[in-house]
Amino acid sequence: MLSMRLLEPITINGMEMQNRVVLTAMVTRLSGADGFVNENIRERYLRFARGEPGLIVVEAMGVHAAKSGPLLRLSDDKFIPGLRDLAKEVHDISPSKIVPQIIHFLKIARSGWRQRVRDLTKEDIRLIIVAYGDAAHRARVAGFDGVELHMAHAYTLSSFLSLRNKRPDEYGASLENRMRLMGEVIARCREKVGEDFPIGVRFDGEECIKNGYTVEDSKELALRMAMLGVNYISISAGGKFEDAIKKEGEPLYPYTGYSGDRCMPSATYPAGDNVYLAEGIKGYINSKGYTTPVITTGKIPTPDFAESILQAGKADLIGMARALLADPDWVKKAKKGRADTIIRCVYGNVCKNLDENFKTVFCTLWPRGKIQAPTSSDDVAPEWPNGGRLEARPEAGRILLSWDEATDNEEIYGYEIFRSRNDEPFDHHTAVRSVTRKFADTRVVGGDRYSYYVKAYDLAGNRSPATQTVVVDFPIGVPLPVGEPLPEIRCGESSPDDEE
Amino acid sequence: MLSMRLLEPITINGMEMQNRVVLTAMVTRLSGADGFVNENIRERYLRFARGEPGLIVVEAMGVHAAKSGPLLRLSDDKFIPGLRDLAKEVHDISPSKIVPQIIHFLKIARSGWRQRVRDLTKEDIRLIIVAYGDAAHRARVAGFDGVELHMAHAYTLSSFLSLRNKRPDEYGASLENRMRLMGEVIARCREKVGEDFPIGVRFDGEECIKNGYTVEDSKELALRMAMLGVNYISISAGGKFEDAIKKEGEPLYPYTGYSGDRCMPSATYPAGDNVYLAEGIKGYINSKGYTTPVITTGKIPTPDFAESILQAGKADLIGMARALLADPDWVKKAKKGRADTIIRCVYGNVCKNLDENFKTVFCTLWPRGKIQAPTSSDDVAPEWPNGGRLEARPEAGRILLSWDEATDNEEIYGYEIFRSRNDEPFDHHTAVRSVTRKFADTRVVGGDRYSYYVKAYDLAGNRSPATQTVVVDFPIGVPLPVGEPLPEIRCGESSPDDEE
Repeated sequence: MLSMRLLEPITINGMEMQNRVVLTAMVTRLSGADGFVNENIRERYLRFARGEPGLIVVEAMGVHAAKSGPLLRLSDDKFIPGLRDLAKEVHDISPSKIVPQIIHFLKIARSGWRQRVRDLTKEDIRLIIVAYGDAAHRARVAGFDGVELHMAHAYTLSSFLSLRNKRPDEYGASLENRMRLMGEVIARCREKVGEDFPIGVRFDGEECIKNGYTVEDSKELALRMAMLGVNYISISAGGKFEDAIKKEGEPLYPYTGYSGDRCMPSATYPAGDNVYLAEGIKGYINSKGYTTPVITTGKIPTPDFAESILQAGKADLIGMARALLADPDWVKKAKKGRADTIIRCVYGNVCKNLDENFKTVFCTLWPRGKIQAPTSSDDVAPEWPNGGRLEARPEAGRILLSWDEATDNEEIYGYEIFRSRNDEPFDHHTAVRSVTRKFADTRVVGGDRYSYYVKAYDLAGNRSPATQTVVVDFPIGVPLPVGEPLPEIRCGESSPDDEE
Repeated sequence: MLSMRLLEPITINGMEMQNRVVLTAMVTRLSGADGFVNENIRERYLRFARGEPGLIVVEAMGVHAAKSGPLLRLSDDKFIPGLRDLAKEVHDISPSKIVPQIIHFLKIARSGWRQRVRDLTKEDIRLIIVAYGDAAHRARVAGFDGVELHMAHAYTLSSFLSLRNKRPDEYGASLENRMRLMGEVIARCREKVGEDFPIGVRFDGEECIKNGYTVEDSKELALRMAMLGVNYISISAGGKFEDAIKKEGEPLYPYTGYSGDRCMPSATYPAGDNVYLAEGIKGYINSKGYTTPVITTGKIPTPDFAESILQAGKADLIGMARALLADPDWVKKAKKGRADTIIRCVYGNVCKNLDENFKTVFCTLWPRGKIQAPTSSDDVAPEWPNGGRLEARPEAGRILLSWDEATDNEEIYGYEIFRSRNDEPFDHHTAVRSVTRKFADTRVVGGDRYSYYVKAYDLAGNRSPATQTVVVDFPIGVPLPVGEPLPEIRCGESSPDDEE
C-alpha cells in the first residue's frame, strides 16, 4: 500500500471511511418508477462496493411520492426493507460506507411547464421540510451510515438557494432568505436522525447560468451548513433547468445545457476544472474556524491527480462518478499500487448522453451490451501477435492512427493511446473500445512532432507491452512569418456587398 | 508616484506605453451607422486619453461594409481622415497610445437567421483576409500606434476558432484547421503593416458555451499567435451568439446570455474572475519560450488589485473597460497616489444593459442625462451638514440604509458605502448616485454583525468625512442547532399527492 493521503482513513461524525474517495451520486436509470431497489440497482452498487471506495453515495431517492421516471424512493416506510438489504449487503462484502442521497423536486410537464419556487405555498414548503426529515430518519432505520441532502442542480433546495430565487417572502430574494429552507431542512433532519448520524449536503459551488450565484455566495452557503452541523459538504456545479435544451415530447431535463457541461466536464475541459470551487469554499470555512470536510468533484482522473489536490489542501475528500463507473476497482487498484491497471474514463460523456436521452446509464468502455462493469481477477496481460503494426498519418488537419488486433487469454477490453508532443514525456491520451482499432487525433498542432504508442488492455486492466512508437511531423496550416512565403492572396475588392 | 509595476512603462514592438493599463474595446453606440468618427466619439476617446492609460483600444471598426447598427469603419480609405484626426488629437493631449480594434462579422437578420461559418465560400474567406489586411494598413496610415485584431466573442474570426466550427474543409473541425483563418489573417496583416507596427489580438480564453473550447485550446491558440509574431494577446471570455437571448423584433445580440455575463462579470462574481485564463495562457506560452505580453480583463476594480495580478506574474498588462468608463482618470489618480479618489465601478452592468438594448452606452454613476464622464479638478471635499445621520435597520432578510444629503462647493456626485462584517476591516461595498440616499444590502448573513459608514464624493472623487458608523446585529433566519429550539413543525403526511 502506497503512502497517500488519498488512501488514509477519515472519520466523519463516527462514520469511519477507509479512504478519501467518495462515489458521488449518479443517475443510473436502472430503477423502476416504483421506487424499489431492484436486481440491477443491487448489482450496480455491490459492484461499486467491491472496489472499496471510502464512501458510496447511492443515487438520488425521492423524499416524496411525486410522479417521475425511474427513481428510488425514501418517501414511505415500505421502501425501507429493500434499502436495508442493500446497505447490509454492501457492509457484508466491503469496508465502504454507504449513504443515500435524498431529493425533492418540483413538478415538470412534457408541455414545458414547470413548477417554480414562487408557486409553492407555505404549506407546500412545510411538507418539504417534513418529508426530508422523515426520509433522513428512514435512511437511519434502513442501516445506512448517514444521509446526503441533495441541494444541487435543478432540484427544489437548489432552486431556493439560487440567486434567481426572487420569492418576495422570507424564502427568497436576499441571501439570508434564500438560505432559510436549507436551514430548516438541515435542522429538521438533524432533529429526526440524532446528533450521532452523519448528514452531508451536496450543492452547487457555482450555478453556471445567467444571473446565477458564484463562489461569492456558495462560500456563505457552505459556512451556514457548517454552522448548522452538517458533517460533510460535497461541491458540484451547474446542472440547471434555466439553460437546459428542450427536447420535443420530453420533459425539460437539466444537464443538457452549458451548466450541464460544467457539472460533468468533458474531455475538452482541463482535469479538475471545478476544484477551484472546493478550494474557495474550504479556504473560507476553514478561515472561520470550521473543519467540515469538503468534497471536490469533476474530472479527477487518476490517484496521483487526486492526491495532488489533497496535498495542496484544496479539498478534504475526492468525489468521482464517471471514473468509478469506468472502473469500479479504481480504489482497490490504487491501494495495490497498480494505478497502471485502472480502466481510465475518457470523459467522452456517453454516460451523460444516455441519461439525457432517458436511457439506462452504462459506460461506453464496458463490453458491448452489458449494463454492469465487468469483473476479472485475471493477471495475464494481452499480447501483440505482430507488434501491433501501429500506423499514423496526417490527414485533413488530424493525425489518423490504426493498428492490428491484440490477443488475450481472456478478452481484449480496449486500447489505450499514449502520446508525446515534441519529445516530451508520453501521456495517456485516450482509449477506445476493442471493436475499434483506429483513432483520429484532432487536437494536434501544426509544426509539432507527435509520437504515439498503443497498449491493449483486458477486463482486469492488464496492459500489453507497447506497440512500436510511431512519429509524425505534423505540417503547419499557415506558414510562419519569419523567412517563410506568405499565402498568395489576390488583392481584390475589400468590401463585400452591403446586404443582409 | 508610487512604485508599482502597474505604472511602469512597457514597449511593445516599438510602441512605448507609459503604464500597464489598457482601455479595452467597448461598444459605445455613439457612432452613426455611416461609420465615420463623430463629435461624440471624439469626446469619448479624448476624455479617456486625458486619464492617461498606457493604451487606448478604440471600439471595434468594421473591416468590411456589411450592414450593421452604429459602428465605426475601416473598410474604405474615406474613413482615414476622421480617424487620423482622432489619433492625432489623442497624441497631442496625452501620452496614451491608441489602436483601433478591427472586426469582421457575419450577417444576421431580425428573423433570427444568421450566417454561419459553414455558409462561407472560399472566396468569402479570401475577402475576409484581404479586408483585414487592408484595414490594418489603413490603421497605420491613419497614424494609430498599432492595430488590434478582434478574434473574440461572436464574430467571424472567433467563430472559426470555436470548437463548434465543424466546417468539413481545411477551415474547420480540427484544432489546426480552426486556427487556419486566424493565421492567414495575422500573416496578411503583418504583410500589409510591416514588421515594425504592433499587431495585437483579442480572443476568448474560454467560450463559456455548451461544447465551446476551454483554456485547453486557448493555450494552443495563443501559442500560435505568439509564433506568428503577434505583439500582444488580450484575453476575453464568452460573449457568444449560441446562448444569446432572442428579443422579438431585434437581431440576436451576443452578451445577453450566460457567456455575456462571463464576458463582463457583474457584482455577483469575484473580482478578477477571468484572471485564471490569462494566467494559464501566459504560463503556457512562457514555458514555450514566448514572452508576448498577455492582457487580462474582467472586473479588476482597483490599482492594488491590478498590481497583485502583475506581481503574481499572472498577466503582463491589465485591461479594463467598465472601470475606466466609471472613472476615465483611474490611471492618473493612481499615478498621483490618490486611488482613494477613484470613482469606483459598481459592476451593476447598467452599461452592459444599455448596449444589449441598443442604446447609447453611458455609466449609471455619471450625472443624469450626460453621455460623457464629468471632468473636475476641484479639490474641496463634500461635507455632512449634520454628520449624515446614517441609519440602518434589518428588514425582510436585508439591511436597509438611509442617510441625509451632503453638500459640496461643486456638486455631490454620489455616495459610497463602506461595510465591515464581524468587526473585520471596512471594505468599499458599493456606491449609489447622488439622487439616491438609501441602499438595501441583500448580501447579509444572519448571526453576523454589520457595520456601515457612508462617504459622499464630488465630481473629482474627493471624499467627504465618513458618517458616524452604524452597527446592526443581523438576526439569523434559522436557529442554530446547539441549544436552540427547532422550528415548530407539525408531523403530518410526508408525501404530497402524486400528481402532475
